[in-house]
Amino acid sequence: EIVDAIVAKLIGSKPLSGQRVLVTAGGTVERIDPVRYITNDSSGKMGFAIAEVARDRGAEVTLVCGRTEAAPPNGVNVVHTDSALRMRDEVMRRLDGTDIVIKAAAVADYRPASRADQKIKKSSDSLTLELVRNPDILQEVGEWREARGSGPFIVGFAAETADVEKHALDKLARKKCDLIVANNVSEAGAGFGTETNIVSVYGRGDFFEHLPQMTKRAVAERLLDIVKDARKGLANR
Amino acid sequence: EIVDAIVAKLIGSKPLSGQRVLVTAGGTVERIDPVRYITNDSSGKMGFAIAEVARDRGAEVTLVCGRTEAAPPNGVNVVHTDSALRMRDEVMRRLDGTDIVIKAAAVADYRPASRADQKIKKSSDSLTLELVRNPDILQEVGEWREARGSGPFIVGFAAETADVEKHALDKLARKKCDLIVANNVSEAGAGFGTETNIVSVYGRGDFFEHLPQMTKRAVAERLLDIVKDARKGLANR
Repeated sequence: EIVDAIVAKLIGSKPLSGQRVLVTAGGTVERIDPVRYITNDSSGKMGFAIAEVARDRGAEVTLVCGRTEAAPPNGVNVVHTDSALRMRDEVMRRLDGTDIVIKAAAVADYRPASRADQKIKKSSDSLTLELVRNPDILQEVGEWREARGSGPFIVGFAAETADVEKHALDKLARKKCDLIVANNVSEAGAGFGTETNIVSVYGRGDFFEHLPQMTKRAVAERLLDIVKDARKGLANR
Repeated sequence: EIVDAIVAKLIGSKPLSGQRVLVTAGGTVERIDPVRYITNDSSGKMGFAIAEVARDRGAEVTLVCGRTEAAPPNGVNVVHTDSALRMRDEVMRRLDGTDIVIKAAAVADYRPASRADQKIKKSSDSLTLELVRNPDILQEVGEWREARGSGPFIVGFAAETADVEKHALDKLARKKCDLIVANNVSEAGAGFGTETNIVSVYGRGDFFEHLPQMTKRAVAERLLDIVKDARKGLANR
């Protein structure tokens, strides 16, 4: 990490200098009661790698973290959150002035409809947990930009276990984002907790690029190259 | 840790020499689908501290771990598990020949009634998650001993957020265990994830001892002293 920063400094390659990049990472924590919660297998590693590469390329990076397995990288502005609702608030209030938003966090789609103040005691043989939809942060970011007429370049992630391409293309169409990075998290060497990833990047105008298994750092580097090219393309439209 | 082990070796104080101690630690992971799960705030630190002290006192320690925040201590036989069902199996098959069982893990009371093979896609505004009761491992250990007529000394933990004494005494009466270590996990300096704990120990024959805030290591030391005295008491009955 330190070596990377020194190398970047020596080379003087700072293509993201002056750019504000907001990255989300990790899984959200949706409380059932004071001791129990629903979460997911996201480790935060993919988002951390993106934040590191953006930092090394000279960007001013804000990293909005949910629950993560390791400590976030140095040299970035870390914002700790827990639930999807809090993550949404922390992201939305920072959009103004942000140039690139990359949503690598695994945000829970649902949260318990109500949170018990006391630990729920076991009393019956079964229990029904009512869940309600969480806000779709990626979509809200896209709608914010559309309503405003301008705003950040938006990259979303799609973690799937089946029909990866179908879900990714659907997500790209429905949400108002620029790129979708899709991976099959049930594939060996890809997805949650692993050191490597295998992703496919889908963009406007039928853009498609498959990245074979590589370290999350290498995925982050290639992804930021794609973002750079795509932003140039947008400027030309 | 190494220093403790050396000190214990030099002093030659091995009161648990030749004894088999089984400790459970951490929270269980109850899968909803391949990426989502229900868990709790247990860090595993209390169970780890007990395993360390038992090891330092000469015991042969088996540590059955759920999800934990740190790596388990050295010098103990670590068994990794995830769900309550798996933890139950790993504990029960080791009871024969075990002298002391200390159940410091936070076992989920409920698990999803069914586990989806694919990631559940968000489709509706709400979702109902049906949960069913998990086995009560502490109670099963007590019943195993009762049915057999002999078996290990049994210590259970009660993590509460209200009416701590009431729930602890109830647990002691209902389950066939020897000691209940109760704490209010919503109290500052006690419970999940903290370095210290504040517990009350309840035993047969109105035994009660409150331990003020101290490190989890100190709680473990005092707890194993209480276990030692209680086992002598049992032998005298």
